[in-house]
Amino acid sequence: MTHHPVEKTPVTLLGLGAMGTALARAWLAAGHPLTVWNRTPARAAALAAEGATVAETAAEAVAANGLVVVCLLDDASVEEVLAGTDLAGKDLVDLVTGTPAQARARAARSRERGARYLDGAVMAVPPMIGAAQAGGYVLYSGSTEVFERHRETLAVPAGTVHVGEDAGFAALYDVALLSAMYGMFAGAAHAFALIRKEDIDPAALAPLLADWLVAMAPSVHTTAGRLRSGDYTGSVVSSLAMQVAGTPTFLSTAEEQGVSPELLSPYFTLMRRRLAEGGGAEDLTGVIDLLVRHG
Amino acid sequence: MTHHPVEKTPVTLLGLGAMGTALARAWLAAGHPLTVWNRTPARAAALAAEGATVAETAAEAVAANGLVVVCLLDDASVEEVLAGTDLAGKDLVDLVTGTPAQARARAARSRERGARYLDGAVMAVPPMIGAAQAGGYVLYSGSTEVFERHRETLAVPAGTVHVGEDAGFAALYDVALLSAMYGMFAGAAHAFALIRKEDIDPAALAPLLADWLVAMAPSVHTTAGRLRSGDYTGSVVSSLAMQVAGTPTFLSTAEEQGVSPELLSPYFTLMRRRLAEGGGAEDLTGVIDLLVRHG
Repeated sequence: MTHHPVEKTPVTLLGLGAMGTALARAWLAAGHPLTVWNRTPARAAALAAEGATVAETAAEAVAANGLVVVCLLDDASVEEVLAGTDLAGKDLVDLVTGTPAQARARAARSRERGARYLDGAVMAVPPMIGAAQAGGYVLYSGSTEVFERHRETLAVPAGTVHVGEDAGFAALYDVALLSAMYGMFAGAAHAFALIRKEDIDPAALAPLLADWLVAMAPSVHTTAGRLRSGDYTGSVVSSLAMQVAGTPTFLSTAEEQGVSPELLSPYFTLMRRRLAEGGGAEDLTGVIDLLVRHG
Repeated sequence: MTHHPVEKTPVTLLGLGAMGTALARAWLAAGHPLTVWNRTPARAAALAAEGATVAETAAEAVAANGLVVVCLLDDASVEEVLAGTDLAGKDLVDLVTGTPAQARARAARSRERGARYLDGAVMAVPPMIGAAQAGGYVLYSGSTEVFERHRETLAVPAGTVHVGEDAGFAALYDVALLSAMYGMFAGAAHAFALIRKEDIDPAALAPLLADWLVAMAPSVHTTAGRLRSGDYTGSVVSSLAMQVAGTPTFLSTAEEQGVSPELLSPYFTLMRRRLAEGGGAEDLTGVIDLLVRHG
């Protein structure tokens, strides 16, 4: 019997920054024929030695394969680089970080030019690419057809999650997850600031802090359930009224420790506003309503 | 051979709110002789049926045992309730939530009255008390002697962590952990607000959000290491300059989705300030320095 190797989908990759280079190496390592292009040719040369085909122009790179992955600096770079290319019939996967509106506009523009469009948001840093155990993944939204056709190829550098046919959803999820992360970082910054003037090793606080945040993170499932039902009451933990009653201790402690409350106060302000509007028997979910502008 | 049952340390407990009642039940279930007092006698009556001795007055309750645990509403209640009691020779454990300064003042006041003082901060809600697998615990600080002598008794309702001889440290850790948690909740609130006007089920975002926060929480160990070394540079993830460059995407997305940035902007403001002061090559640790007032 003759052994027929499985044909791996050829990939074109535009953009060889840190992330693009990591993606390129992952596809090359998995045996995918890879055509690369980068504005600065030096980065492509290193990959040529590893088996990549280096295109002279973006147009040549796009012409080479049906699957075109874009990993450039920003949406303006995408417009500029794709301007001189023929996208007709291409499956375009755009990993450039942007807003949902930018992704939707890029999807519309791609359709006009005859391409199917899949937007991707990379929830990983370059060292996590190609290392399945690192837990990084890419959020995809837009063409389900493109996602399904290239599912195995897209899964080579990192895990994949398709979050909807709306091209803007990957960017929206991305921004939502990272915004929540910055909130957590802000809270942790306040926590570390509180111990600064004491004889407390930050490395003694860190394990308790990490464990506490990990223990509290699953509360977002409760929040989701309350948002779905529209009923924010009935918490087994503690009511908004009780939590607002506790806020002076937090603010006084910050004052005692010489720490600015600027990262903590905005949330407390919204908690108090929701309480004033009659939400005392709710949990904290009502704060979310106060953030959304109506009309 | 005659079986000698192990003598369990008798406990006096002042205050039978939800938390006090949960503590009382845990000690009774473990076979500790328990004397209780509560301002409203009805709550004590229920516990009497379960084996507790009900004291008529706080003074009588304090006189009954060497270990006195206080679980009242606030520090002012502690002052008031203990005023008419004889604390000489007592091991006083104060589980009332307050600021570090309140705990330190309470410790000094207790010493003046001849008692040894241990402050405790309960990192659990009442349903978690007496359920070791629930993961709740109590932070203790102050008299190491009291903590060591009663370690086993204190471990009955929840896990124990002694964080220092300074009576204020338990409260400080408590406030630090909960402040960080509120930051995380603020971030999650912003995330849920972002999807509000889209056809996205909050329960579809929640698992990704929980996993992402859990994955990012251990970064506090890196932060602790940087605070110890004083060197905030050399991140393998991304520099402050790169992260500040990304902030317009977050703010534009909030604007597109009709979401107020008030919970996100304060952290971004500090990131930009640190960048302007020359911290572009750092990670985000420098934000902590900006929170601490000098002098």
